[in-house]
Amino acid sequence: MHVKIRNLFEDQPVGETVRVAGWVRTRRDAGGFSFVEVNDGSCLGNLQILADKGLANYDAEVRRLTTGCSVEVEGVIRTSPAKGQAIELQAGAVTVVGWADPETYPLQKKRHSFEFLREMTHLRPRTNALGAVARVRSRLAYAVHAFFQERGFIQVHTPIITTSDCEGAGEMFQVRAMQQAGGAEEFFGRRAGLTVSGQLQAEVYALAMGDVYTFGPTFRAENSNTSRHLAEFWMIEPEMAFCDLAGNMRVAGEMLRYLLNDVLVHCAEDMELFDRFIAQGLIGRLHGVAGQEFAHITYSEAVERLLSCGKAFEFPVQWGIDLQSEHERYLTEEVFRRPLIVTDYPAAIKPFYMRVNDDGKTVAAMDILVPGVGEIIGGSQREERLAVLEKRMLEAGIDLEEYRWYLDLRRYGSVPHAGFGLGFERLVQFVTGMANIREVIPFPRTPGFAPC
Amino acid sequence: MHVKIRNLFEDQPVGETVRVAGWVRTRRDAGGFSFVEVNDGSCLGNLQILADKGLANYDAEVRRLTTGCSVEVEGVIRTSPAKGQAIELQAGAVTVVGWADPETYPLQKKRHSFEFLREMTHLRPRTNALGAVARVRSRLAYAVHAFFQERGFIQVHTPIITTSDCEGAGEMFQVRAMQQAGGAEEFFGRRAGLTVSGQLQAEVYALAMGDVYTFGPTFRAENSNTSRHLAEFWMIEPEMAFCDLAGNMRVAGEMLRYLLNDVLVHCAEDMELFDRFIAQGLIGRLHGVAGQEFAHITYSEAVERLLSCGKAFEFPVQWGIDLQSEHERYLTEEVFRRPLIVTDYPAAIKPFYMRVNDDGKTVAAMDILVPGVGEIIGGSQREERLAVLEKRMLEAGIDLEEYRWYLDLRRYGSVPHAGFGLGFERLVQFVTGMANIREVIPFPRTPGFAPC
Repeated sequence: MHVKIRNLFEDQPVGETVRVAGWVRTRRDAGGFSFVEVNDGSCLGNLQILADKGLANYDAEVRRLTTGCSVEVEGVIRTSPAKGQAIELQAGAVTVVGWADPETYPLQKKRHSFEFLREMTHLRPRTNALGAVARVRSRLAYAVHAFFQERGFIQVHTPIITTSDCEGAGEMFQVRAMQQAGGAEEFFGRRAGLTVSGQLQAEVYALAMGDVYTFGPTFRAENSNTSRHLAEFWMIEPEMAFCDLAGNMRVAGEMLRYLLNDVLVHCAEDMELFDRFIAQGLIGRLHGVAGQEFAHITYSEAVERLLSCGKAFEFPVQWGIDLQSEHERYLTEEVFRRPLIVTDYPAAIKPFYMRVNDDGKTVAAMDILVPGVGEIIGGSQREERLAVLEKRMLEAGIDLEEYRWYLDLRRYGSVPHAGFGLGFERLVQFVTGMANIREVIPFPRTPGFAPC
Repeated sequence: MHVKIRNLFEDQPVGETVRVAGWVRTRRDAGGFSFVEVNDGSCLGNLQILADKGLANYDAEVRRLTTGCSVEVEGVIRTSPAKGQAIELQAGAVTVVGWADPETYPLQKKRHSFEFLREMTHLRPRTNALGAVARVRSRLAYAVHAFFQERGFIQVHTPIITTSDCEGAGEMFQVRAMQQAGGAEEFFGRRAGLTVSGQLQAEVYALAMGDVYTFGPTFRAENSNTSRHLAEFWMIEPEMAFCDLAGNMRVAGEMLRYLLNDVLVHCAEDMELFDRFIAQGLIGRLHGVAGQEFAHITYSEAVERLLSCGKAFEFPVQWGIDLQSEHERYLTEEVFRRPLIVTDYPAAIKPFYMRVNDDGKTVAAMDILVPGVGEIIGGSQREERLAVLEKRMLEAGIDLEEYRWYLDLRRYGSVPHAGFGLGFERLVQFVTGMANIREVIPFPRTPGFAPC
């Protein structure tokens, strides 16, 4: 059995014989022996293999090892005399499993740009930074489940293929069976597309199970080539029955702090890489967000602040507009200098399902803004009153008969309920400091780009 | 703050004042008071509310409560004198939150057929059996993550929209932007579809991170209206570097036993419902599977057994055929009477990526069969030798240039690796004993059926 290098670094079993397996990152020769740095993906650090010329295949194979070759090594763990590493492996046998021709292998010892690596998504997890992203992403995903499951939330797999459109038509992908020629019958009997949000269906389960959450892929057929947009991304959407906007804000804040604390503890080594090479000061910033309650103002207060601050914005501010990124970042980064929840947005700029406040003009919506990123969470209390909801839907031009199932939730045992959405890739960007969202998902899908 | 009923049953805080919120399952009146059974989805059991005529709204509201109404109740927990329940709630105040008109509300106190409930997927989680399925499904999903994460596996979100086809064309759904007219440009620059398996892309990450797994939706545009097929379902696919068929079998067995033990402990109440009303003997059967090593024979041995058993099968047996359900069930239910792993299938009936054995005729594949269900897991060691893989792909009519990224994994640092796939809904069917797969996924998608 092979031992994971992560476990060796944790346990430091000096004197023991172990077997490891992984890929060569570098090799350098000294007098009569080679240092071979091997990585197995279990952690950022490489295990240094000391391979001396006494090995049977030293000249024929070990000295020919280059970046990317795969090896199995058996040997004895010993304390390393070198700086920066506690242990190394004195090889008793090095087996070359697979070669990687240095003439054609695209990854070499030098640092490659993320743009260059994006052209080979199938090799980039072999680099330090993208490997670290993969580990942090996996840990964050697990922490999401742990947070909700520890609190008694039921995970619901809402459908990927759907005939409902939560956010308004136009940006949905259409789904058809390959066999369908131009005018053939629809596979599902009607036009179907890829979900843009699991919210509406999550509400079905919240109104039966109480507290639920979804964590699944969502899609936008948007022709946006920016560092913050993907055509396919993962979203976390809790939905809570007997919950109002205040309860929604509380859970969202607790969740964000839980996730940050978890990843800072469990991915310390990877987080140091991001702090050193990707976004200096990152760890301090995340500790800051994780360690304090979030500030809170209403949209109307935010507009007043922006109007009276004397700053010239590119997009002029007035009550009724959607806040722009520059406004959000000014509020969270310069005014409050900490995470900020903005609530009670104008009804006219928000979707039909958000609960109308008593003023008749605003809705019980919330956005959470964080320094350096801007909006990371959006949510609301949902409109639980059948008559109000029907009126809002008609105003939005929605066919009530199509959404009869959704209205039934207000017809039978309706309750106040609330929920929010967290774009998982935005979260991974926030945690890792990666500038481009394409680096925080294994296989990014963007206009014109789906190579495998 | 509301307390979950599940927590009340666990903690039994007799004498304490609590608030609960949920939906009325039934109400019955006695002399001067009502028993109201309330369920909040946190567990199968209802909390019995004792509401007496002293309540201000007793005549006006409490006595009008019917199935499906939502209520908030504040009161004192006391020991119940009634049989079958340890505690009940003496109501100090009952607030009706939402009514459910008994004239039109489709769910009533009587038992409804699953076929009837399927016509209203948005209400069926409010029933005992479908609520129990939701809780068991959620727990199983969490246990899947726990199993792999505890063992150092990295979760990889493989793409949903893909331009590769793992299992062979024809049954894929095609994905296009809604705006695309008949002949317009493809959003991704080429024909794209919904994934049928994350395996090929999971291999990318296994060859960098060692041990990885995927847990995501997969799709088949198959015109199958059976109790075992869905157009959209979730699949668990681990992929392990430096792993052979024996290691693959070991992990698959450990995983299945871990999942069964976990759900038997954490969903005991729900499992009793399935054992009593859905599949008698279920719990005993699952304990049996969870408690023993799996049997193992090769495909060739299986064929010999089937040929010599003297039983007449509908599909005649000879070496080279794909085993049918009747053959599989005979082997696992009548010959071995426990879970059975069949390995080393004929190469001609298995996909290109499975590793060819030294005999040149068979591949290092495995299927796991369980009593009562048949095949639940399929996996293989993958072909890691570039030349052999290219030959197999050409024989299968695959364009090597299209799969250059996949072949690169064998070109650069190739290693033996293996993995398997577990259809999550088949697992939930196996665990709950539900006869039709449409009952174990929240929103089933089948030909002609995607109502929301």
